[in-house]
Amino acid sequence: MSGKNILLFLLLFIPVSLAANFLHWGNLIVFITAGLAILPLAAWMGTATEEIAVVVGPTLGGLLNATFGNATELIIALIALNAGLVDVVKASITGSIISNLLLVMGFSMLLGGLRYKEQTFQSVVARVNASSMNLAVIAILLPTAMNYTSAGISEKILQNLSLAVAVVLILVYALTLLFSMKTHAYLYEVGVADAEEVHTKPNVWLWSGVLLVCTLLVAFESEMLVGTLEEATSQLGLTSLFTGVIVVPIIGNAAEHATAVTVAMKDKMDLSLSVAVGSSMQIALFVAPVLVIAGWVLGKPMDLDFNPFEMVAVAVAVLIANSISSDGKSNWLEGTLLLAAYTVLGLAFYFHPVISSVG
Amino acid sequence: MSGKNILLFLLLFIPVSLAANFLHWGNLIVFITAGLAILPLAAWMGTATEEIAVVVGPTLGGLLNATFGNATELIIALIALNAGLVDVVKASITGSIISNLLLVMGFSMLLGGLRYKEQTFQSVVARVNASSMNLAVIAILLPTAMNYTSAGISEKILQNLSLAVAVVLILVYALTLLFSMKTHAYLYEVGVADAEEVHTKPNVWLWSGVLLVCTLLVAFESEMLVGTLEEATSQLGLTSLFTGVIVVPIIGNAAEHATAVTVAMKDKMDLSLSVAVGSSMQIALFVAPVLVIAGWVLGKPMDLDFNPFEMVAVAVAVLIANSISSDGKSNWLEGTLLLAAYTVLGLAFYFHPVISSVG
Amino acid sequence: MSGKNILLFLLLFIPVSLAANFLHWGNLIVFITAGLAILPLAAWMGTATEEIAVVVGPTLGGLLNATFGNATELIIALIALNAGLVDVVKASITGSIISNLLLVMGFSMLLGGLRYKEQTFQSVVARVNASSMNLAVIAILLPTAMNYTSAGISEKILQNLSLAVAVVLILVYALTLLFSMKTHAYLYEVGVADAEEVHTKPNVWLWSGVLLVCTLLVAFESEMLVGTLEEATSQLGLTSLFTGVIVVPIIGNAAEHATAVTVAMKDKMDLSLSVAVGSSMQIALFVAPVLVIAGWVLGKPMDLDFNPFEMVAVAVAVLIANSISSDGKSNWLEGTLLLAAYTVLGLAFYFHPVISSVG
Repeated sequence: MSGKNILLFLLLFIPVSLAANFLHWGNLIVFITAGLAILPLAAWMGTATEEIAVVVGPTLGGLLNATFGNATELIIALIALNAGLVDVVKASITGSIISNLLLVMGFSMLLGGLRYKEQTFQSVVARVNASSMNLAVIAILLPTAMNYTSAGISEKILQNLSLAVAVVLILVYALTLLFSMKTHAYLYEVGVADAEEVHTKPNVWLWSGVLLVCTLLVAFESEMLVGTLEEATSQLGLTSLFTGVIVVPIIGNAAEHATAVTVAMKDKMDLSLSVAVGSSMQIALFVAPVLVIAGWVLGKPMDLDFNPFEMVAVAVAVLIANSISSDGKSNWLEGTLLLAAYTVLGLAFYFHPVISSVG
Repeated sequence: MSGKNILLFLLLFIPVSLAANFLHWGNLIVFITAGLAILPLAAWMGTATEEIAVVVGPTLGGLLNATFGNATELIIALIALNAGLVDVVKASITGSIISNLLLVMGFSMLLGGLRYKEQTFQSVVARVNASSMNLAVIAILLPTAMNYTSAGISEKILQNLSLAVAVVLILVYALTLLFSMKTHAYLYEVGVADAEEVHTKPNVWLWSGVLLVCTLLVAFESEMLVGTLEEATSQLGLTSLFTGVIVVPIIGNAAEHATAVTVAMKDKMDLSLSVAVGSSMQIALFVAPVLVIAGWVLGKPMDLDFNPFEMVAVAVAVLIANSISSDGKSNWLEGTLLLAAYTVLGLAFYFHPVISSVG
Repeated sequence: MSGKNILLFLLLFIPVSLAANFLHWGNLIVFITAGLAILPLAAWMGTATEEIAVVVGPTLGGLLNATFGNATELIIALIALNAGLVDVVKASITGSIISNLLLVMGFSMLLGGLRYKEQTFQSVVARVNASSMNLAVIAILLPTAMNYTSAGISEKILQNLSLAVAVVLILVYALTLLFSMKTHAYLYEVGVADAEEVHTKPNVWLWSGVLLVCTLLVAFESEMLVGTLEEATSQLGLTSLFTGVIVVPIIGNAAEHATAVTVAMKDKMDLSLSVAVGSSMQIALFVAPVLVIAGWVLGKPMDLDFNPFEMVAVAVAVLIANSISSDGKSNWLEGTLLLAAYTVLGLAFYFHPVISSVG
């Protein structure tokens, strides 16, 4: 069964999840079928985005890829936040960064590396993205580090610091866009010619329609997913930490995942890395700040004080991803190392009893 | 108003601060005017140093730049240490490293980057400096890390370890000078020819005189600054941690700041980076050890056990600065990222209630 | 006295240690003489391995070097584990990583750098090794990080997580060998021609015999070393932490040390680095997991929950070694920096009172 056929098959879970929900087949069934239904929708969003990316060029294309991959993430998170699942939403932020840097980048390098002995990517862009991501990730972890290293930090201080950090990050995000689209756009334009040669121009309007419909359906399925999340995962014996860090991001990042792996197997590692690193960067620079501010507006205050072990895990993911991607080359072993790091972190979160030592 | 005119104007604060002090205009006024009076003096020291640097070449020039920038720092710190403000002095060490790596390097890359699309610097020297700085910074943070990760560390152990670390660092400092001036001086000599072409030979004796006079005046103003520091900052609602980490280094590093930014805007990024990184290196390899030993001699024992969040902040600053400077290229966005990191850390120190969780 | 003569002289400690043991000259004498007897044996193993390496090429040669260096380590550790010295064995794992990255690499770069102004090594292999080592080191530190950042982690959870991590690491180790010997062997083959030109083909069988005999003797001496370790080191006023982190690895790593420094002084930095980094990698990817599994089998359960300060020290060693080796060049100052880092860590472990703050 080819990739396209699997996606068509998974679309069946849209009606199945609806049936499960309205016919009361149980929370676990609803949760699983809604989760499965989101996968093809996110993947179609990915395909649509890739098609549109061919027309609009790799810069805007990479940005589009990351935005609409993160749209799934953002939709699930906003619905969960509104439902009061603050802990799961916070865990899904760190989990999403970890999963993009280790799981998505790992599979891209592994599957790309099984086809091509060595793959290369433009290290200038990789470096700028990595620097922005490093800054953003450190910034969102700062309230956690402060709370972890000091006693007597009140919730109000953490909330104020988190809001202040969120505002700085959104400004940085805007400047990053200015850099990549205006002042230094030429850095990102290499490879456009290549892409146009191998592809007939797709219909932008058609694919934009696909994007819109999928977005609405994702929102609908997310409502069912979030509504059943707590009971379903506790039935499976999973903690809210594991659910947030591992389960939710796998569903939410399916689009980037599909896109990044597909283009890696076509030896377009530049686009692949720009999706994985760009997506982590955008989670930290845009999604996390938006959620902090949204939580404040919705009256469901969400600070950036994560579980200290989440902080460790994100630091680990960033260090390994930097170490592996900084030379602008990849091979299957590097992909395997990223996946091994993800596995080990996943095991740790699985065993984690979710009680932090401080505070 | 041009830069030179601003400096001339700020010189007025020398008599004003004297008046404020002897006519008892209040601690806050004395503190602010003495701080403002130090700025042009430090800047003149910077100008004098840059002029002398043209004659003696970039190696010795870079060293001179860092030394006389750090002279301001060292003078303020010694006076504060003698006055018993051990906490402020300790915080000013970490703050000075952070401010050189993020604020000074950030403004240099931003303002340089607004004039030149991309600026380059010799990565060999940058790398050797970065390695020395990494080692030095890690070494001065080690007593903090030990105290933070273990219970039952006595003050005597911390003091002994700090003294031992100080001796090792001063030896390393001497070897670093041997490397850059003797065995591998050729690495640092590139660019001398350029400098000589664009500049008529300045009068070394004249500028040395300026350096001397400014040094004496800085010492005098520092006495007034330190004498009013505690009351003035508590009037402003600032903690001693914030004062040490943020306020004192901005005053103390004004010289490096002015020099680094000025030369960055003339596209001499090599000299600019060598000032910022070299200054951080020298704070950790020379100023901090000297203060530990001076404290021991003066009977005001000062160990290297910092607030754990200072350790986090320095680690963050070093990681981001390494990540951004390691490719030997810079642009305005990289400068902005450094400044954003500084802003976020500044916010965290502003909100910090200054009670460490361990010990 | 030449190197060879020193080694011949040290062989005298084999009969001396036997006499000390059976004539009851005291634990300290047995400990010291057994330790000294291991040095020439390990060094002969190193020489034998280097000779064999010339025939079998640098890849397999580098691997052989690391394996038989680590054989000494593994033998001592297994005997100590069986004797119930779990804390010393755990400390010797982190100590061995630290000593390879800082002491062995440091002396190689320093002594090589005193002969050659600048030495270079193939950065592709260095980078792959560094990435594997980074992953492995992070993985073995993860249980410690989890226990340190959370309360309520039971010993059973730590044991299970440690076993799971061990299995993942052994799989990664197998894949690393597949990479370096099969799919990407060409990356490691540069330099074979050079080696063959300068050397007549040695007798593989003779040197294999030497390896075998030395291995058996090392095992025998290790029995005496371990049997007297606790009493001897407490007589010297050393904690078990210092013994495990500093003393045991210096004895256990003598082979790599001798090999790495010798080849560095012949300007074969590729082989030298591959010994030092490869050995650290192998400790983390192979020796540590084998010990965890062996402890489980032997009924002496050993988890990977180290003293938090060991975690800090390993992280520091890895960061500095990465920072210094990532550019594929070395000089005497870089060697000195590594040795300074080792000295400072050694001082900290010397002063450490061995009571962790959590758990």
